[in-house]
Amino acid sequence: MKTLIEVLEDARRQRVAVGHFNFSELAAFKAIVAAARTVGVPVMVGVSEGERGFVGVRRAADLVRSVREEFGMPIFLNADHTHSIVKAEEAARAGFDEIIFDASALPFEQNIAETRKAVEAIKSINPTIIVEGEIGYIGTSSEILEKTPEHISAHTTPAEARQFVEATRVDVLAPAVGNMHGLLQSMVRHEAEKRLDLGRIAELAQAGGIFMTLHGGSGTNDADFQQAIRSGMTIVHVNTELRLAWRRAVEAALKASDEVTTYKLLEPAVATVGEVVAARLRLFNFM
Amino acid sequence: MKTLIEVLEDARRQRVAVGHFNFSELAAFKAIVAAARTVGVPVMVGVSEGERGFVGVRRAADLVRSVREEFGMPIFLNADHTHSIVKAEEAARAGFDEIIFDASALPFEQNIAETRKAVEAIKSINPTIIVEGEIGYIGTSSEILEKTPEHISAHTTPAEARQFVEATRVDVLAPAVGNMHGLLQSMVRHEAEKRLDLGRIAELAQAGGIFMTLHGGSGTNDADFQQAIRSGMTIVHVNTELRLAWRRAVEAALKASDEVTTYKLLEPAVATVGEVVAARLRLFNFM
Repeated sequence: MKTLIEVLEDARRQRVAVGHFNFSELAAFKAIVAAARTVGVPVMVGVSEGERGFVGVRRAADLVRSVREEFGMPIFLNADHTHSIVKAEEAARAGFDEIIFDASALPFEQNIAETRKAVEAIKSINPTIIVEGEIGYIGTSSEILEKTPEHISAHTTPAEARQFVEATRVDVLAPAVGNMHGLLQSMVRHEAEKRLDLGRIAELAQAGGIFMTLHGGSGTNDADFQQAIRSGMTIVHVNTELRLAWRRAVEAALKASDEVTTYKLLEPAVATVGEVVAARLRLFNFM
Repeated sequence: MKTLIEVLEDARRQRVAVGHFNFSELAAFKAIVAAARTVGVPVMVGVSEGERGFVGVRRAADLVRSVREEFGMPIFLNADHTHSIVKAEEAARAGFDEIIFDASALPFEQNIAETRKAVEAIKSINPTIIVEGEIGYIGTSSEILEKTPEHISAHTTPAEARQFVEATRVDVLAPAVGNMHGLLQSMVRHEAEKRLDLGRIAELAQAGGIFMTLHGGSGTNDADFQQAIRSGMTIVHVNTELRLAWRRAVEAALKASDEVTTYKLLEPAVATVGEVVAARLRLFNFM
């Protein structure tokens, strides 16, 4: 079984990206696992601090380990957007494969200082854990938004990226390049799409040589996704699209009958979330 | 940590019952775990063949193991209503604590023959697994029903119980004593309650000396529950009440807002299912 760093190296060499999808319950988790097995590619699953609060840190780690062992599949667990060193250490001890330490709300110099501390704390627990740092505010919530959040930061410059990576020693960088967490109402209605700063992504890739992650992928233009991946994005996060599919499927199942058998109400969500994940995995892997 | 057989022996000595609750996703699972920890009593969780199909046999076993190890709590996993030896063996290998082999739809002699085979197959994999057998048809589905299912069998007699237990060597017996799977519409409206054949339960307890389980507990009269437990019921199953609470809570959460964050839509279900479980655990433990 390959490690996460080997899977990322393979993806970079092949100029494809590893899809990263969040879960907080079994229907989405099952959907992600099934889609990755069907498409036949590695996959990352993530739990934010809120999602970890619901699933349980150890439960998330044990679920992923259980699937990895049963199916022998390359599935990796990420502690998405971790804002404190205590929470990062908890995930490290539970056996997470990656931890995103996100101090991007702080001024740049403080972000560097905090992220550096987090890298040291995490690597001292397990040096093989991949640590990702984030520059620039791209919104916080994987929700449906009326309008673009305020204070979205300017796009990350190559100089910032270089300084941040050298000073913090993160393994992976999440830059601000036109991406944004959540989906606008207009995107839900398919009247708009997110567009990426493809020129900047190429500059960052050339400047750093570090792995990069595209957060907030939901609702992004397909061609932009693929160009960003060709230019150097090795991990792509999608969350809100799955949440929306889950909500719609469960809502429809509840309306359709008086069924009380819980898993029968959730089966349609497994199907529709699975379709979203499979389509994204195919796009990210140029299949 | 006590084993399931030790927990059942304690319960019989104290004349209380261990509550058994089904789950097929994380909200109910979390609710059951939290309620048992709050009330401070052992608990059993069960997955029927359908529920196992959704959760995954190994996933169910790993989830329960994860909770047991993290909290050091006496939680035990049951393969509820297992209809084939293949499925029984799968659960045995995955590490389930109890397996209910249910051939009760067959004529009595065939039920005995099949259950005997299942006991041998399960014990040859792991002799410490508790095996339960079932006499008499009490309905099959933990759903909301318009009327009592047809062909509900006559109540199990002490002679049948003795013959069944001696011939099959099951550890636990599930008799038909007025109980029934599911809930009638009238019970959902709180216009009716299930009543148990308390005289027969006492006779069965005196005749056999074996552990007995009361299935289909949802909607049962409180005094009947406690009298049945005092007379010799050591495990009590409740499922439909939890499913109904889950459905109502998720339906209300979806109606209340356009929230798409999955775990936020499920949090009310954890709360209301947890209230049902805690109330049942207190009743079954005379607290």
